[in-house]
Amino acid sequence: MEKQKFGVAVIGCGTVGTAVASALVRDEGYLFEKTGVPLTLTSIVDIDFSRARAAGLPEALFEKDFQKVLDDKSIKLIVELVGGTGFAKDVIKKTLAAGKHAVTANKALLAHHGGELYPLARKNGVALAFEASCGGGIPIIRALYDGLIANRIDALFGILNGTCNYILTEMTQKGRSYQDVLAQAQRDGLAEADPTLDVSGMDTAHKLAILGSLAYGRRVDLEKIPVEGIDTLDSADVAFGRELGYTVKLLGVAVRMENGISLRVRPTFIAQDHPLAWVSGPFNAVSVYGSVVGHTMYYGRGAGGSATSSAVVADIVSCALGTADAVFRNLKIWPDVSEAAVQLPIQDIVSRYYLRLMVEDKPGVFAALAAILGKYSISISSVLQKEPQDESASIVPVVITTHRAKEGDVAKALEEIDRLETTRGTGVCINILDEHEETI
Amino acid sequence: MEKQKFGVAVIGCGTVGTAVASALVRDEGYLFEKTGVPLTLTSIVDIDFSRARAAGLPEALFEKDFQKVLDDKSIKLIVELVGGTGFAKDVIKKTLAAGKHAVTANKALLAHHGGELYPLARKNGVALAFEASCGGGIPIIRALYDGLIANRIDALFGILNGTCNYILTEMTQKGRSYQDVLAQAQRDGLAEADPTLDVSGMDTAHKLAILGSLAYGRRVDLEKIPVEGIDTLDSADVAFGRELGYTVKLLGVAVRMENGISLRVRPTFIAQDHPLAWVSGPFNAVSVYGSVVGHTMYYGRGAGGSATSSAVVADIVSCALGTADAVFRNLKIWPDVSEAAVQLPIQDIVSRYYLRLMVEDKPGVFAALAAILGKYSISISSVLQKEPQDESASIVPVVITTHRAKEGDVAKALEEIDRLETTRGTGVCINILDEHEETI
Repeated sequence: MEKQKFGVAVIGCGTVGTAVASALVRDEGYLFEKTGVPLTLTSIVDIDFSRARAAGLPEALFEKDFQKVLDDKSIKLIVELVGGTGFAKDVIKKTLAAGKHAVTANKALLAHHGGELYPLARKNGVALAFEASCGGGIPIIRALYDGLIANRIDALFGILNGTCNYILTEMTQKGRSYQDVLAQAQRDGLAEADPTLDVSGMDTAHKLAILGSLAYGRRVDLEKIPVEGIDTLDSADVAFGRELGYTVKLLGVAVRMENGISLRVRPTFIAQDHPLAWVSGPFNAVSVYGSVVGHTMYYGRGAGGSATSSAVVADIVSCALGTADAVFRNLKIWPDVSEAAVQLPIQDIVSRYYLRLMVEDKPGVFAALAAILGKYSISISSVLQKEPQDESASIVPVVITTHRAKEGDVAKALEEIDRLETTRGTGVCINILDEHEETI
Repeated sequence: MEKQKFGVAVIGCGTVGTAVASALVRDEGYLFEKTGVPLTLTSIVDIDFSRARAAGLPEALFEKDFQKVLDDKSIKLIVELVGGTGFAKDVIKKTLAAGKHAVTANKALLAHHGGELYPLARKNGVALAFEASCGGGIPIIRALYDGLIANRIDALFGILNGTCNYILTEMTQKGRSYQDVLAQAQRDGLAEADPTLDVSGMDTAHKLAILGSLAYGRRVDLEKIPVEGIDTLDSADVAFGRELGYTVKLLGVAVRMENGISLRVRPTFIAQDHPLAWVSGPFNAVSVYGSVVGHTMYYGRGAGGSATSSAVVADIVSCALGTADAVFRNLKIWPDVSEAAVQLPIQDIVSRYYLRLMVEDKPGVFAALAAILGKYSISISSVLQKEPQDESASIVPVVITTHRAKEGDVAKALEEIDRLETTRGTGVCINILDEHEETI
């Protein structure tokens, strides 16, 4: 190992930071033998080293002064694992300005402030790599910028949040309620004490913004992505969907349409025989439909220190080999060198829909629903109405699935249906996503 | 497009060659815009241009003289899509010797003669890229040399042959016989007129040799891989397995054991809830278990001109960007710069087994079977013995699944069982592959 060391510093010593540091220390010899690159961890920067200490990392690596790391010429790359969009942003900006490569897992930061960071990397002749930002250890960013580069991407469907997928899997397989599963997931450490970012769909939106940008080579505006979480999902709908042959997943969806890209995040029904349907528990997966390759799918652990560190270390190796730089410099798919995406408004989404309406159990009610749907050119595909379990029940659910329709029309029809005297509450509306047709 | 063109020639104008040539012509502008690399197809070499003509490729590209292409300095890369191990080998050797990058989809050639080709590429300072050799359009080679580089690979299970997977899917889902499905697949163009390479498992073995070498960074010897095809598979076993909760797949398996790597190709039962179990029809998929990332899986079309051309073009772009060269030059996982793998002999495979024995329907027979299994320390996990449908039937199947046992012991026990007076024919023995335990 006489070759000049490629010094790496890790900033932020939480779950992922500790896992990355541990991997670099534990596998230094193995990685050198395998890659020919003499990676070496020189510093771990944080103010609290309790996790690092618990993991048995050497005290000599602990450093509280970020500036010292910036000034150290032997450090060629800094890994930002601070999280959030405040100090983390500062870390990356200073790293790039110092002419060092930056590697991050920070989807929120990239989705909100990528616009500032990519050009800074470019200006300073270094790479900004972020495989770990989407899908944890799944090499999905690489698939988009490398393995699938020959393709125009027709569609991308992603299960991108392990907490949500765990909750939905439990709701689906065991018929449990959202609140019940969430509470247990929090007790088991599978959901944060404040789970808002996950269950609201925002975390998935951050990842979809990043993946959508690379897939289409067009800069996606996070603010324009319609986002719905799983926090209002009723287990009754999960059960009805199941009966109809569907599994509900929180999906980030990006579909190329004639006039732009339709992006959205929401609980979505997919057919039980779609490859994404069996992705259960904390696993993530992304289906990508390419114009040349057809349907490909990528599956793995979407979170957790170890799995995420696999992606971070892959980025470190790519930076050291110069391949990260070669793709960052040459390809025109990065958000700072591509045009803004034409993002279609929510009412232009074309999809099939699942509707659940609570109606009075009396003659003529269904005819009224059907008439309103017909008025908006929404064609009914199936109807599920059960005998009331309790004979005295006067309000019963009617479940309707539609053929493909425009979301704007469905919204208008639902509004009108909600105003009927024979309906109660607000109708439930859930996207049904059919297998995307391959164009090869 | 003033930049100096990066000339590409395609040798071999069959299904894949025509698809690659068509992609390069059709997408020249798109690929330049996306990658910044001015790829240009300069020649298609073959003696028969009927397919190329039918695809509407320009006559000006047709060239019968390979030497002219070799001599053309503007051609930086040659794609070998001739197939076979004769002329194809010559094409690649001459390409590399001429200082041009070589891209190939030829698994047989690499598995048999990679030993000659890799060093030649290295000596001439060019890359030999072969993403299309395994899994068609699935970027699985890249996953091993790039996305998963931080990992020691614990295990790799691959469905690597679309023809076999199509046949097995039909047998499983519709209870059809092997011969029946094969005949139809041949009529439908899903199987070759001579399907031997596919159904014998040899094609899968070629791919496993390539993937195993990269996964473990150890040179795998094709000749030492035990190979069984699907051509002797009885639909009765497919049905019994299904009843027990298993789906049969032709798997290429590579597992890292304490004392070496266990590699094999054979029809294998996997649990119906394993991600590979639902991979149906002509699709391929590879599960990779990494020491850091845990279980990841890669899914897509394993054959076909278009899907395969996606991988070929990705390699062309990587060669043009210099990234293919950077990984080929630096990483120590390529077969010419890595040690020979320690390949464990077949009798050392440790697995669970499915056994079907045809026995006389009379008292004491099962006790005799159980005694022999016990003698070889093979522990029974489950037994399935049905009432004979025809009361006069004197020979009935007994299906036994075992706990983990050494294959050598199972073979000895089966030999002994086959010699019993109360058994008929040769017992059927099929591996049961449990979900590999993640080590993260």
